[in-house]
Amino acid sequence: MSNNNTATMQQSFPMNGGDGPHSYLNNSHLQRQATNASRITIEEAIAKKLDVKCFSSNPFRLADLGCSVGPNTFIAMQHIVEAVERKYLAQGLKSEMPEFQVFFNDHVANDFNTLFASLPTERRYFACGVPGSFHGRLFPESSIHFMFSSHALHWLSKVPEELLDKNSPAWNRGRIHYTSGPEEVSHAYAAQFEHDMEIFLSARAKELVFGGMIVLLIPALPTGIPTSHIPIGIMFDLLGSSLMDMAKEGLISEAEVDSFNLPIYATSLEQMTSLVERNGYLIIERMELMDPTSKHVAVSGKDYTMNFRAGMEGIFGEHFGSGIIDEVFDRLYKKTVEFSHQLESSHKEGTQLFVVLRRK
Amino acid sequence: MSNNNTATMQQSFPMNGGDGPHSYLNNSHLQRQATNASRITIEEAIAKKLDVKCFSSNPFRLADLGCSVGPNTFIAMQHIVEAVERKYLAQGLKSEMPEFQVFFNDHVANDFNTLFASLPTERRYFACGVPGSFHGRLFPESSIHFMFSSHALHWLSKVPEELLDKNSPAWNRGRIHYTSGPEEVSHAYAAQFEHDMEIFLSARAKELVFGGMIVLLIPALPTGIPTSHIPIGIMFDLLGSSLMDMAKEGLISEAEVDSFNLPIYATSLEQMTSLVERNGYLIIERMELMDPTSKHVAVSGKDYTMNFRAGMEGIFGEHFGSGIIDEVFDRLYKKTVEFSHQLESSHKEGTQLFVVLRRK
Repeated sequence: MSNNNTATMQQSFPMNGGDGPHSYLNNSHLQRQATNASRITIEEAIAKKLDVKCFSSNPFRLADLGCSVGPNTFIAMQHIVEAVERKYLAQGLKSEMPEFQVFFNDHVANDFNTLFASLPTERRYFACGVPGSFHGRLFPESSIHFMFSSHALHWLSKVPEELLDKNSPAWNRGRIHYTSGPEEVSHAYAAQFEHDMEIFLSARAKELVFGGMIVLLIPALPTGIPTSHIPIGIMFDLLGSSLMDMAKEGLISEAEVDSFNLPIYATSLEQMTSLVERNGYLIIERMELMDPTSKHVAVSGKDYTMNFRAGMEGIFGEHFGSGIIDEVFDRLYKKTVEFSHQLESSHKEGTQLFVVLRRK
Repeated sequence: MSNNNTATMQQSFPMNGGDGPHSYLNNSHLQRQATNASRITIEEAIAKKLDVKCFSSNPFRLADLGCSVGPNTFIAMQHIVEAVERKYLAQGLKSEMPEFQVFFNDHVANDFNTLFASLPTERRYFACGVPGSFHGRLFPESSIHFMFSSHALHWLSKVPEELLDKNSPAWNRGRIHYTSGPEEVSHAYAAQFEHDMEIFLSARAKELVFGGMIVLLIPALPTGIPTSHIPIGIMFDLLGSSLMDMAKEGLISEAEVDSFNLPIYATSLEQMTSLVERNGYLIIERMELMDPTSKHVAVSGKDYTMNFRAGMEGIFGEHFGSGIIDEVFDRLYKKTVEFSHQLESSHKEGTQLFVVLRRK
């Protein structure tokens, strides 16, 4: 067994660590809103579909895949532990209430020091950190009862190779994402996502106990809506044009933009359904599109910009050098102001996929 | 359950993180020698005393308590995994060979980022980091098959309180350790160690599966030898007198030295035996004094100084301020040269206790 063979060939893009003004810790409230929005749905899934009677009693092991540095992961894990405790009570198993062990997983380069330092002191579980890519095995066979992943699976394991081949129709010149690009580019992204998900689902199926549950929250594209009409797609276009402006001004080269692509993909309900069915080890208990934020909450261009920066500063810095980060995100912010009508009128409904799977 | 209630009242003194010239990573070869010296003895304990037939097959879970940042912990875990694999083969259980999961434990403030970044890529186990003090619970009940702790248990959970009370006969004026101090100071340290070990052994007994094994390597005092005659004791005396010199020169105050004590204690074979017996949950399979380093390896004053600095820079910096660290350890090094005859002729035999315990 060599758990890292695949991981070392993959790219790793951790969220910003620490607790500074650009940290993920202080700029992840959009992800938190999305998780909160799904809280009741997760509780329902546990109440209705998780049969704790079929587990050997002790302990109950949970994992958060792509947990980043908190606090979102702590809030989510606490909710899930409480919901499972209620399920034990509801199934008349008070005397068999297990101890809980939570595995916080993210890339090796994730800031686990910050994660550990901010663990809630009054937690009701034993905590572990698991470094490594979820695009591969992370846990021993049949050892996890519940897996959760929120806003992480849209990160591909790597940029599809054909995007960097000048002779390929998928060469992504002048853009940094498939949004508003040619069909070949979208197809290359989709193929990479399908490959990644096949590995992801097979690994999780091995690691889950029989009857174990996976809950996934993933940014998604509603049927019939182009990526360029959803907020994340608009942001990718604005980021790309910010970079092209900088290239025109000679601050970076066009070749640098051409060779840079964000390995982020928004799946659809239909695609995800077919991938789970093709894998065959997991029952789809629920699969539906949700609104990631409440309709009453206005998300500003500043919010989107800070959120993007906390998640993507690392990958931009690696490619373009850390010296241009401020410039890139300053320009991005100005574009969000300039194109605020586009962001405001964008299609936000159903841009999050909620998935509940159970191990056969 | 609140796993951290006790931990938050304790003091935390991680080894130096990172990979710089004063890092534990680059200055822990004395601990590595000590672990290597015990390698064959650990293999013997596993071969003779670990009955893997009594475990449910999958996975086999190991923990290293007080692992620091590597590489020592990786070397030790690799040896133990290989020895357990051989035991499965020897017991005719090739077809039931388990997957391995290793829990690397240390204080929350330990540099887990460095630990994770330096994990061997070709490892034969799934890796987790477990933040928290081993002076308390770390794992779910009956969940670990093998625990290891090397050169960590001599760290007390805190400085005994009476040492800071000017009206107590255990007030430790002008010294930073019980070495060469009055009996009351030694007794206060011993009482704290006994209290800590009671909690340690009870926690481990809960966490181990029946038949599970603990192997401990602890700096120890051979019977009849005063602490001031073993290398670590000489180093404490030299450190204390370095600080008192600095106080006399006005670089720090005497009150600062009086109020500083290193929470480090060297147990004896007799004391440890009686503590394990009093606890009652663990069988002593082996308990003996060993030489921590080969007789043919000369350890220089520089080696000792660098080793002390990597382990103790944090605790000194917290009390005296990080500005004096270089000065303290420069002086310590000079003292090791001045008193090199004392270090060379010190009593080194049997200053490491090797303990094998098995869960009843």
